[in-house]
Amino acid sequence: MRRTRFDRWPCPIARATDLLGDGWTPIVMREAFGGCHRFEQFQQRLGVSRATLVQRLRKLVAAGMLEKIAYQEGPRRYEYRLTDKGRAFFDILAAMWRFGEDWLFRRGHAPVVLIDRDSQAEIRPVVVDEATGRRIDVRRLGVSLRSPAST
Amino acid sequence: MRRTRFDRWPCPIARATDLLGDGWTPIVMREAFGGCHRFEQFQQRLGVSRATLVQRLRKLVAAGMLEKIAYQEGPRRYEYRLTDKGRAFFDILAAMWRFGEDWLFRRGHAPVVLIDRDSQAEIRPVVVDEATGRRIDVRRLGVSLRSPAST
Repeated sequence: MRRTRFDRWPCPIARATDLLGDGWTPIVMREAFGGCHRFEQFQQRLGVSRATLVQRLRKLVAAGMLEKIAYQEGPRRYEYRLTDKGRAFFDILAAMWRFGEDWLFRRGHAPVVLIDRDSQAEIRPVVVDEATGRRIDVRRLGVSLRSPAST
Repeated sequence: MRRTRFDRWPCPIARATDLLGDGWTPIVMREAFGGCHRFEQFQQRLGVSRATLVQRLRKLVAAGMLEKIAYQEGPRRYEYRLTDKGRAFFDILAAMWRFGEDWLFRRGHAPVVLIDRDSQAEIRPVVVDEATGRRIDVRRLGVSLRSPAST
């Protein structure tokens, strides 16, 4: 069955959904943020078949999330680096981490925590409004058409 | 081809990925936050087949994201309400919105913006660390095993 595509919908959530629809996207991106750059590193950490990984990395390069850069000549070898767009994806992963930690394990029993490596303090991602720094009040939230003047 | 399942992996991102893997999850949840409660409302707004929608709503109820509540007897009619878990999913949608707005439209050309309905101010979701209110510095981020004492 062909998946419904959301990538031309006019809603930012719908478009991001399309990118996430392939379950491997967040997992591969998680490893990229964790310091994976080379094909063998991804493969070792994920235990995924070469064919699947080739396809996933190609998709992320095509989407502009990773770039493939030659780091050695003769034989030429490549590594995968986060682009600006790829780095911006971090917030989605951070929000997924927090939701997963709070709701997809027995309460308080997620086996891993995010920490600041310098201070060892636990990091708990949360979404706020950039301008005010405050949590977003969903009951007051609306969606408005962007006025042409502001684009 | 059967999708790889991530819902028993020990990583919060992997588990959230599994929930997101079905592309309709964020779309249906978006409508729930937008005030949809009844089957016909979801169907009208999404233009999706009844069969698909039945299946998606059932999945979200089974996942504890929505609850199905009778709001009328004779004939009995149901509506779908966000649970606490479903409400917590908002942060993922907010992070997806921001990423989509910034990176999945021509810069500055997303046709819609989030607003605070009271002040009409634009809302731009961003992820921070809950304790400090500061952006998370990915270069200093680490993952640590939770110490048994803290669970």
